[in-house]
Amino acid sequence: MPDAQEVLSANREFYRAFAERDLEAMHTLWAREAPVACIHPGWNALAGRRPVLESWGSIFLSPEPPTIRCHLPRAYLLGEVAFVICYEVLERGSLTATNTFARERGAWKMVHHQAGPAGALPSEQMPEPPGVVH
Amino acid sequence: MPDAQEVLSANREFYRAFAERDLEAMHTLWAREAPVACIHPGWNALAGRRPVLESWGSIFLSPEPPTIRCHLPRAYLLGEVAFVICYEVLERGSLTATNTFARERGAWKMVHHQAGPAGALPSEQMPEPPGVVH
Repeated sequence: MPDAQEVLSANREFYRAFAERDLEAMHTLWAREAPVACIHPGWNALAGRRPVLESWGSIFLSPEPPTIRCHLPRAYLLGEVAFVICYEVLERGSLTATNTFARERGAWKMVHHQAGPAGALPSEQMPEPPGVVH
Repeated sequence: MPDAQEVLSANREFYRAFAERDLEAMHTLWAREAPVACIHPGWNALAGRRPVLESWGSIFLSPEPPTIRCHLPRAYLLGEVAFVICYEVLERGSLTATNTFARERGAWKMVHHQAGPAGALPSEQMPEPPGVVH
């Protein structure tokens, strides 16, 4: 599978784990060797694997965890690192998100997630510059 | 200069160019070969060098461009790619930002910037996990 498809597949796995509150899959998905971070909307940055995974645990256990749908993911490849930009469609409004992955022992692992308020959702018709893969 | 210091230096140059509205420096700082993107707070993602640099041009020309100070930058190294997480202190409130860099012909070049609303500003005393450099 070409790199872009592998990265987009890892991105889909992130949103599947989020939707199904699958904390074990989150533990598998996030990198173990590379330094990791996570910026939830309106939060300060969480640095390191333990605080990041604990944050997902507390989000999954919250009384009303958000339901979320990934829209228009686009992969930006930088060799052994890649980031995916996508929109997260929630019940109320949407977020713009970047998910960064690094190849670790052959598999694409998450090293960073940041989401923040988006504008109006863009459509499929947006032109893509060279090097951006969907 | 070790990688982390080079990356933090490129991050400083980004905020210097921002503060001084130095569009030429922005053109030099952003990557020419790698795919680039930018997510300004509340905007949708801009994809590609031209839209990204045009956005900085229009921000610099706006009647009241924001004044901004970079607080607590921390570098996360991933080989030929690195990201810096920092806080952007504005006149009203602060943002959490990620600036991603890739090495291009020996120099660290910006490939992605995302900023969104932050919580209360953290202090210098936050513990750092292994592999995060300041």
